[in-house]
Amino acid sequence: MKNPLEPDCAALDQRDRERFAPLQELFAPGARGIIYFDAGSIGPMPADAPRRVQETLQSQWRIGRRRSWNDTDWLEQPRRLGARLAPVIGASADDVVVGDSTSVNLYKLIRNALSIAAPRRVIVAERDAFPTDLYVVEGIAEAGLAELRVIANAGELNQALAPGDVAVVALSHVDYRSSERHDMRAVCALARTHGALTVWDLSHSAGAVRIELRECGADFAVSCGYKYLCGGPGAPSLFYVHPKWHDAAWPAICGWMGHADTFAFRRQFTPATGPARHLVGSPPVVANVVFGAAAEIWSRVDIEAIDARHRSLSDTLIALLERRCHGFGIELQGPREHERRGGHVAIRFERASALVQALCDRGVVASSREPDTVRFSLHPITTRHVELEDAVERLRDLLDKAAWRDARYQHHVV
Amino acid sequence: MKNPLEPDCAALDQRDRERFAPLQELFAPGARGIIYFDAGSIGPMPADAPRRVQETLQSQWRIGRRRSWNDTDWLEQPRRLGARLAPVIGASADDVVVGDSTSVNLYKLIRNALSIAAPRRVIVAERDAFPTDLYVVEGIAEAGLAELRVIANAGELNQALAPGDVAVVALSHVDYRSSERHDMRAVCALARTHGALTVWDLSHSAGAVRIELRECGADFAVSCGYKYLCGGPGAPSLFYVHPKWHDAAWPAICGWMGHADTFAFRRQFTPATGPARHLVGSPPVVANVVFGAAAEIWSRVDIEAIDARHRSLSDTLIALLERRCHGFGIELQGPREHERRGGHVAIRFERASALVQALCDRGVVASSREPDTVRFSLHPITTRHVELEDAVERLRDLLDKAAWRDARYQHHVV
Repeated sequence: MKNPLEPDCAALDQRDRERFAPLQELFAPGARGIIYFDAGSIGPMPADAPRRVQETLQSQWRIGRRRSWNDTDWLEQPRRLGARLAPVIGASADDVVVGDSTSVNLYKLIRNALSIAAPRRVIVAERDAFPTDLYVVEGIAEAGLAELRVIANAGELNQALAPGDVAVVALSHVDYRSSERHDMRAVCALARTHGALTVWDLSHSAGAVRIELRECGADFAVSCGYKYLCGGPGAPSLFYVHPKWHDAAWPAICGWMGHADTFAFRRQFTPATGPARHLVGSPPVVANVVFGAAAEIWSRVDIEAIDARHRSLSDTLIALLERRCHGFGIELQGPREHERRGGHVAIRFERASALVQALCDRGVVASSREPDTVRFSLHPITTRHVELEDAVERLRDLLDKAAWRDARYQHHVV
Repeated sequence: MKNPLEPDCAALDQRDRERFAPLQELFAPGARGIIYFDAGSIGPMPADAPRRVQETLQSQWRIGRRRSWNDTDWLEQPRRLGARLAPVIGASADDVVVGDSTSVNLYKLIRNALSIAAPRRVIVAERDAFPTDLYVVEGIAEAGLAELRVIANAGELNQALAPGDVAVVALSHVDYRSSERHDMRAVCALARTHGALTVWDLSHSAGAVRIELRECGADFAVSCGYKYLCGGPGAPSLFYVHPKWHDAAWPAICGWMGHADTFAFRRQFTPATGPARHLVGSPPVVANVVFGAAAEIWSRVDIEAIDARHRSLSDTLIALLERRCHGFGIELQGPREHERRGGHVAIRFERASALVQALCDRGVVASSREPDTVRFSLHPITTRHVELEDAVERLRDLLDKAAWRDARYQHHVV
């Protein structure tokens, strides 16, 4: 019998059925019997991806070959994908394109922001940002192109901005461990007050929760394509440029796909208008086709409904964890309010990686991060409330035993 | 009856049959009845590519999901592909990796060469280089990171190097229009004498003719993956770093895949050893899998046999063109000697793009470049001598008529 103090997961799924069942059907089923809470490492596969890729290989590449550069949408994909994904991050169609990796895009946009903000040359970054975000800014500083000011957390932002010399505030929107989400609106306003530009890494929020880049006045943003956005393993990244910077400065890396007239083969570089000027080399066609299957799904969603569903899922998970796993040494990491959390719910547990491995052996896929974070990444479309209940039950059962604490549960990460 | 002054194409194919027929079978057939001479725009598809991609999507992504980051070769692909392709460009397995686009890699390697050669800051580039190669160096100069010295051709190289202030000589190995190939050994020696580093774009030679990067002492090189190398539309690019520069300077763009210990998630960047330090973001898994089908084929070839076959094909084409199309206003562009030509044979013709369109309508796919270049890109594995004869016959027939000179043959390029 249901405990009246606990969420009724079946009822919550039933409530969302009409809106979400048609979207869920657009994804291919994963491994049978596996409860998957790791869209933060890689999202599930859109059912249409294999067919699209086969069509591209067999018809466009094998048969069409060179003609396909002219006759298909290969060269339009970066803009088309960007336009379809833009509403998911609160941007207009013209503000977003897809291409290159998240780290390369971060590099390009931070360098672009530095150009705009010159002669200021300070980049503010967070000590606990996702490591590659730090490496990108470290590399820029090492090359003598900026000065780095590292803060411990958002609380130090005011102080870091106070000298009035900050060019760029580069932040992960959501902490990849704790899931703590920055108040984008407040940070953008604060940066603006101090004459600094913002560059956001949305990898752990895009496709999971509502983001309002334009509304908040964010200047630049990038996102991983293969997490919640389900663009496929190693999918190209999407990036956003606020309209006021569409034509503001030369891109950091100039290439033919960022040229205003690529196939005129001019000797001089003339940047295209908008974020497309930051495109560089030939589009990764096959990867873009895979991403296209996901973009098609995203073009059908209502981002408010996505956000509400994600809130319901993660609030439910927290409630279940607290009620059923109380006393086993786990603790919610990061804030309780949905507005202050990203795509995953994080808990602290001393032997996080061993717990994740043991959970995995029991059919629940989560992920761990050093030293003591267990992450449950909840996909707003494919995750169901009943899976949360099932998983927490398996977790409780596991915590109740000691057998999983053996040596073979080594540290696995991605 | 055969003209004894002309190449006996059937006999030439018969001669190569034992060695090349097994390799040709590893490629999927193109459109029926089409003679394809445009591997310089996009190479043919390895037959195994679709199966490999399906396996990756259905088994590794759909079923494996997060586990695949740990249990498959996804993260090893950039190095593995590089190792397999290295012999094709005369490099050792440890000198080459695959990732990012050609233009982005050019940017990274030229910036790296600038770091090594500091305080020198002059980049020598060719006026008629492939435009994106120019845009890359223009962008670097525009950002104040170098000074650009543009030469008209290799003849001016000595003079450009004379002041002793050149950091980097950045050249396209093969001219994308004329097919003229630089003497890599001589250029490298000359640059070395003047204390300058070389960065080569091999896009129009890699996979077509023999390249000896190590032997010539080339410092850095990049190549497009989707032309003669057959890595698939928009395939990632490969790049080479001479062993003496493996650990010479921080990469221009620092990211987690270039870190010595990616999954330790350290805050400080420590570059990996070798060309892998120039990797940046997550590998484009699906694109790499497609490229893997081609790399498998390349790992089976003898590059000397490839070069000999390409020489035979292109010498045959030149002979046929000169004998059968004499007097129709076409003229060989670029040098006659195979050692001085790249992957394609170029001819000059006043209405190049209209001719290419008319040829295409007759089942022969070539490509044109402004103002008057017609390119026949010959793939050393898949192109057959009898196709050359057939194509030249169609061309002669076409030139003999005037009907194709109508308005609908518009300018098409890629």
